[in-house]
Amino acid sequence: MTKTLAVSPLAPKTMASLPPLAGVRLAVGNSGTRYQGRPDLLLMALARGTAVAGLLTRSSMPGAPVDWCRRILPRGKAAGLVVNAGNANVFTGKAGVQAVNAIAAAAAKGLGCKPREVMLASTGVIGQILPHDKIAAALAPLFGAVAADGWLQAARAISTTDTFPKLATATAEIAGVPVRVNGIAKGSGMIAPDMATMLAFLATDARLPAAVLQKLLADGNGQSFNCLTVDSDTSTSDTLLCFATGQAQHQRIEDARAPALKDFRRALFQVMADLAEQIARDGEGASKLVTVKVSGAANAKAARVIALAIANSPLVKTAIAGEDANWGRIVMAIGKSGARADRDKLALSIGGQLVTAKGMIHPAYDEALATRHLKGREIDIAVDVGIGRGEAKVWTCDLTHGYIDINADYRS
Amino acid sequence: MTKTLAVSPLAPKTMASLPPLAGVRLAVGNSGTRYQGRPDLLLMALARGTAVAGLLTRSSMPGAPVDWCRRILPRGKAAGLVVNAGNANVFTGKAGVQAVNAIAAAAAKGLGCKPREVMLASTGVIGQILPHDKIAAALAPLFGAVAADGWLQAARAISTTDTFPKLATATAEIAGVPVRVNGIAKGSGMIAPDMATMLAFLATDARLPAAVLQKLLADGNGQSFNCLTVDSDTSTSDTLLCFATGQAQHQRIEDARAPALKDFRRALFQVMADLAEQIARDGEGASKLVTVKVSGAANAKAARVIALAIANSPLVKTAIAGEDANWGRIVMAIGKSGARADRDKLALSIGGQLVTAKGMIHPAYDEALATRHLKGREIDIAVDVGIGRGEAKVWTCDLTHGYIDINADYRS
Repeated sequence: MTKTLAVSPLAPKTMASLPPLAGVRLAVGNSGTRYQGRPDLLLMALARGTAVAGLLTRSSMPGAPVDWCRRILPRGKAAGLVVNAGNANVFTGKAGVQAVNAIAAAAAKGLGCKPREVMLASTGVIGQILPHDKIAAALAPLFGAVAADGWLQAARAISTTDTFPKLATATAEIAGVPVRVNGIAKGSGMIAPDMATMLAFLATDARLPAAVLQKLLADGNGQSFNCLTVDSDTSTSDTLLCFATGQAQHQRIEDARAPALKDFRRALFQVMADLAEQIARDGEGASKLVTVKVSGAANAKAARVIALAIANSPLVKTAIAGEDANWGRIVMAIGKSGARADRDKLALSIGGQLVTAKGMIHPAYDEALATRHLKGREIDIAVDVGIGRGEAKVWTCDLTHGYIDINADYRS
Repeated sequence: MTKTLAVSPLAPKTMASLPPLAGVRLAVGNSGTRYQGRPDLLLMALARGTAVAGLLTRSSMPGAPVDWCRRILPRGKAAGLVVNAGNANVFTGKAGVQAVNAIAAAAAKGLGCKPREVMLASTGVIGQILPHDKIAAALAPLFGAVAADGWLQAARAISTTDTFPKLATATAEIAGVPVRVNGIAKGSGMIAPDMATMLAFLATDARLPAAVLQKLLADGNGQSFNCLTVDSDTSTSDTLLCFATGQAQHQRIEDARAPALKDFRRALFQVMADLAEQIARDGEGASKLVTVKVSGAANAKAARVIALAIANSPLVKTAIAGEDANWGRIVMAIGKSGARADRDKLALSIGGQLVTAKGMIHPAYDEALATRHLKGREIDIAVDVGIGRGEAKVWTCDLTHGYIDINADYRS
């Protein structure tokens, strides 16, 4: 990207300030691969004994760093993380494999760990060979520079078309001992469930085995990143990692369902949902944050199918961009979803106002009210399918000229 | 629509001139419902004994005219067709049912047939009550005005955001007797398979029972309208009807697979494919016609899933709009499709040039050549998945500022 994009009008009013987290030190640099004049390389150094859990893209065309993480994640141990932005190292064949091997080796040497304890992620253009020698050279000064207070720079370094850095933090207690969760993420196009996030990295000082962390992460993902779609396009690089440094002085918890983890689960989910919403708020070209809630579907899966059909419909998204209460397009999207629905039982609301009932417009529907709601920044669409108990919620954004601007011109 | 849209740069160089077809007479008028200063109402009067076959949207939110056609189609007989543009009569509850009953009754009276012999279709905005009294009043003068040479006006009258009328014609022989197929269609957004066409009406003077016609129509649809996607949005009003007036003097053919129908099948399919391609060429905001061919997939269904994932990807469509050979996005779309694929066996071509092989860029790939191809009007993307024999072809168009212009502003 040579262009600087204006900050999304949906950016949170205040940015979370992330305090140090025991066992995590960070440093950023410039890799000299794509971006000029900004950090695009992140090194995270993790305390000995850090557990790791992760979720990776389900794309059948994963990048070499995704393959790498998939291979080493089952060990559940991490000593470091290296992320570069600008080049995704995807569809790069043997050269891509060589690059991840070389970068992991360079990081392991600098961190004093094994290569298989170094997690890797890359984001950016697909199909270009990643010059691993440049990454290794840019990493060299970072080993001595890592510090506890580098979270904001870290969030900036992993960005591509993001218009603001995405950070979230929360505290909790485990058995009376305070613990913390910090998280950073980047969007902001090629965003669709399985998983929605392109990259998100979470850390906590809690003492948890990798298996417990994995279960919590998967549960939280279902209520956060997987409820997010910007453009229905799923990245080849989607990576969500969570590190638990174990520096907090509570007893190790061995069961993800243990009551002692209730508060921690809340804090972890809060950070994940916060980051996911920030990604939606920074959807490429987004001018409105759209929340689609579906209830009364045949089951939860059908509810999700309907919510995604609405959230991914170009005609719904352009109508919202145009602040046009063209609710017929929402009906159309439900109709095409393939999920069971009955036209005459459907209740559609915009901004809390009932629009339809009994297969037609509701007699009390006031289009001026709906239009006023659509002129706002946060749009609520709710559908009660009226045939069952399935529920789902999805965040998305509108489809604007900005999306075309960014994506018809991303590489140039 | 108050705006007049510029004619698509992809419009065919020459427009088919449709000759009269024995047994079909046409007239157009203005319904006074939405469009000013242009015909928006079509009456087609059909010879006694005309057979009819049809395919209708699979949307679970169909319009009242679709429900009407679905109910009367099994009888296989038609005496007339009424189409209005500007109001889809969808999601209009009991008022919508009353409207179709009233319009069919008015047409039946004027044509001297039963209401259940009148096919109906409506296209336009969803959710507004169709003022059937206005339609009936506008129909009155048309019964005396129907003429054999009204095909071009008919194609114009059924248009909404179409920038050019869509017509096609072909001749064939059945048992040595010449027959003809005429067709008209309208697009041009809310276009996705099941079925892709919003409205298409075909007529032939061949003598064929409705069951034979239905089989031929379904076969042809699979190779034409169902291979088309503009924006992945499926209309609530999709209607494809084919009338056989039986005026040609050949023997009635009772079997769709009869060798005597081979040439007719070719002509029918040719008209359908021609109209489908014209709809893609008039995709809202389209600046490029994109043909996606997939071969070597696990099976035909998987090939279609992959082709549609590419054709519907906003990131692929914007890259094409930007004339950017960002082939990584095509790989991404294949990866997200859910269909079985092996990154390292995939062969992707753009404009006939091999881009990837063995999981990375092909050594001989020349991006300048690909870019030159993308600067053209007709873009060819071919994917050989390399794991089976499944094949599919899909037509689409690029995603441009024009699409946003049209759809963020359609109702106003």
